[in-house]
Amino acid sequence: MDAVNIGIIGLGNVGMGALSILEENRAQITEKLGFPLNVRRVCSRSVDSLALPASALRTADWRDVIADPHIDIVAELIGGCTVAREIVDAAIAARKSVVTANKELMALCGAEIWDRAISARINIAMEASVAGGMPIHAVLREGISGDRIQTLYGILNGTCNFILTEIERRGESFDAVLEEAQQAGYAEADPSADIDGRDACSKLAILSALAFGERIVPDDIYTEGIRRITPVDFDYAHQLHHTIRLIAAARHTAAGLILSVRPSLIPQSTILAGVRGAYNAVWVLGKYGADTFYYGRGAGSLPTGVAVVSDLMRVAREIRSGSPERVSPFAHARLGEYKPIPIALNASAYYLRFRVIDRPGIIAQLAAALAAENISIDSVLQLPQANWRDLPFVITVEPTTEQSVRAAIARMAELNFLIEPPLAMPMEKSL
Amino acid sequence: MDAVNIGIIGLGNVGMGALSILEENRAQITEKLGFPLNVRRVCSRSVDSLALPASALRTADWRDVIADPHIDIVAELIGGCTVAREIVDAAIAARKSVVTANKELMALCGAEIWDRAISARINIAMEASVAGGMPIHAVLREGISGDRIQTLYGILNGTCNFILTEIERRGESFDAVLEEAQQAGYAEADPSADIDGRDACSKLAILSALAFGERIVPDDIYTEGIRRITPVDFDYAHQLHHTIRLIAAARHTAAGLILSVRPSLIPQSTILAGVRGAYNAVWVLGKYGADTFYYGRGAGSLPTGVAVVSDLMRVAREIRSGSPERVSPFAHARLGEYKPIPIALNASAYYLRFRVIDRPGIIAQLAAALAAENISIDSVLQLPQANWRDLPFVITVEPTTEQSVRAAIARMAELNFLIEPPLAMPMEKSL
Repeated sequence: MDAVNIGIIGLGNVGMGALSILEENRAQITEKLGFPLNVRRVCSRSVDSLALPASALRTADWRDVIADPHIDIVAELIGGCTVAREIVDAAIAARKSVVTANKELMALCGAEIWDRAISARINIAMEASVAGGMPIHAVLREGISGDRIQTLYGILNGTCNFILTEIERRGESFDAVLEEAQQAGYAEADPSADIDGRDACSKLAILSALAFGERIVPDDIYTEGIRRITPVDFDYAHQLHHTIRLIAAARHTAAGLILSVRPSLIPQSTILAGVRGAYNAVWVLGKYGADTFYYGRGAGSLPTGVAVVSDLMRVAREIRSGSPERVSPFAHARLGEYKPIPIALNASAYYLRFRVIDRPGIIAQLAAALAAENISIDSVLQLPQANWRDLPFVITVEPTTEQSVRAAIARMAELNFLIEPPLAMPMEKSL
Repeated sequence: MDAVNIGIIGLGNVGMGALSILEENRAQITEKLGFPLNVRRVCSRSVDSLALPASALRTADWRDVIADPHIDIVAELIGGCTVAREIVDAAIAARKSVVTANKELMALCGAEIWDRAISARINIAMEASVAGGMPIHAVLREGISGDRIQTLYGILNGTCNFILTEIERRGESFDAVLEEAQQAGYAEADPSADIDGRDACSKLAILSALAFGERIVPDDIYTEGIRRITPVDFDYAHQLHHTIRLIAAARHTAAGLILSVRPSLIPQSTILAGVRGAYNAVWVLGKYGADTFYYGRGAGSLPTGVAVVSDLMRVAREIRSGSPERVSPFAHARLGEYKPIPIALNASAYYLRFRVIDRPGIIAQLAAALAAENISIDSVLQLPQANWRDLPFVITVEPTTEQSVRAAIARMAELNFLIEPPLAMPMEKSL
């Protein structure tokens, strides 16, 4: 069979990773597919300074790729929502299938892009947009498509997981570990998209749309980062036989879908608690298939390159077999069971950590604020600490709603022994 | 679009699980696919005694299913290699696609079946044949198809994993735990296919064929069961910071592919060591994507039913889009890089456990046998034991070949203080 021709736009980390795999494995890919994948054009602003396969035509203008009538698939690997959006729109208009690693774009505009792709009878593939090295899209799209997913918990940001597990392992402060992570290349110079949870939020939007077939965007997801986590929080969590991770959660309840990205306590005995360092993982609970778990590198040139190449192979196979188009993964459940609902309706046990100026009556006043919202205390924990002027201690409460916890915290605002507002984290006991 | 019509042959655990999911999720499946899946005929010897959807035609003769011209996909869910083989052959001859949960058949005859299916331009799907609840086929077929797999380690038999982790947790003997497992329904009345490793061997044959694209059959796989594992082996393994699991391993070396199913020591810090109870898991090391890990229920009516239904959905989609046929997953690497080689060439550190009648000079004589094969001792371990007449102790050796270990063990045959032949297990340090 004839080769399928590819145009790659964007030759950063991911683009160069994909390109090197396509080059090194030319023979294997041809055997697997029954026809070759041919990189016909590559596009980058710095295209002239890169070591590229001699056979590929080079351009600095992405429009040359779209305009090439021989190109069947466009790989959009530049990221962001401006030029990338133009490229994807133009590719669809030119009836070329698209492989993308762009989480922002697919999280924000995935449903529309899919609708247009289906009208144009082309395919969109986006494995590389979430958890580069871990084929979670293939799992949700095909592997367990016959199940009905109830709950999905993810560790979707490698930077945050590295920072949290280093705080846990070494007892260093958040700021110290962040600085080290930046020096080691695990965190960016401006780390806010990672540590404030926005990166994980985009990824959860894509995964929960795939898992539940609903049109979910980042605004549907309550998002909170990890800046407030201290070594003492791990000490308390361990006392409770838990650990702390930035958990991206999508939970189907009778009222609808509750979506959040936030630091959470998870039992130490769970498989998610074993995920350390810059890895990503997803735990899925299905109505029929029960629990499954997936784990791999969250990022990196070659792991994400594998996702891009695997998508290229799949889309190329669809093209050669004459069936590129699919039902939109973002629109397959028009039955309305999985509408997002506000985080205020979340029901969970909670961990509340306080920093106070020590004086008599503190527990009584905090307990009164909780009681006023009908929240029952489960335990009060206080580690032996030298510093009585800034005494972190913890109250865990029995399952209640986020709404009640917030109301209780609002009542505590007037208590002048609090050095800062309480830190509240859900305790995910259902894992 | 018109419904795709399905015939289900075999209404045991898996068949009834698949059927109930198809019934309960009729609306969701239609939304996901854009057309309905219709169970047109069901076949079982006991078809008249079962609670079945009213709309499905019933038969006790599988030939009625094959002869029905309206049926597009045949689900073969009876297992075994006799009638099941006839059914699959007849379905392919009638140009119907096949979904199967049959590991024996696909392990033994998968490559031939695929070749015939491709000539007939129909599709074969077999997700349910390995690790029911865990979509490892989708992962290998599509999710990471762009990678080149170097190593695959699996825990593929839930019964063995349950037994081993119970011996580990409670210190009970193999026989006692097996009996309990039989009473609890985790082990069959005749448990030999599970505990002697043959079940895991079939599954590894399928997975390594998929992973490496090679025609691999059970005879290519060195297979050893778990009957000889005792609580004291776990005590020694823990001293070495390892644990013991029945590991199905496929390793690509410069000389070829080494395939084995055998009890093995794995480091306690690895994610595979955390797999407890009747779960299955697969750890894959790719040349580009590095390590990924997959985990889920190994069996069960509904988890395996999910695999069957997901396969039915995928194959139905291919049929409706006019492209059922695929390149055989068993024949895509004709480049000959992944030929199986004998286990004798395996290179590894080993754990050797001896039961001896205590007397002076034992270590010296065992050490001499090892030295004669150029094997270096790494450590000698002896736990404090009351019973000096049957003293289990352990020697670990530095990386050597299986061939050398076997030769050393052969030399030891003449040592009359050995109560039984030494138990040798590889130590998988590369995980």
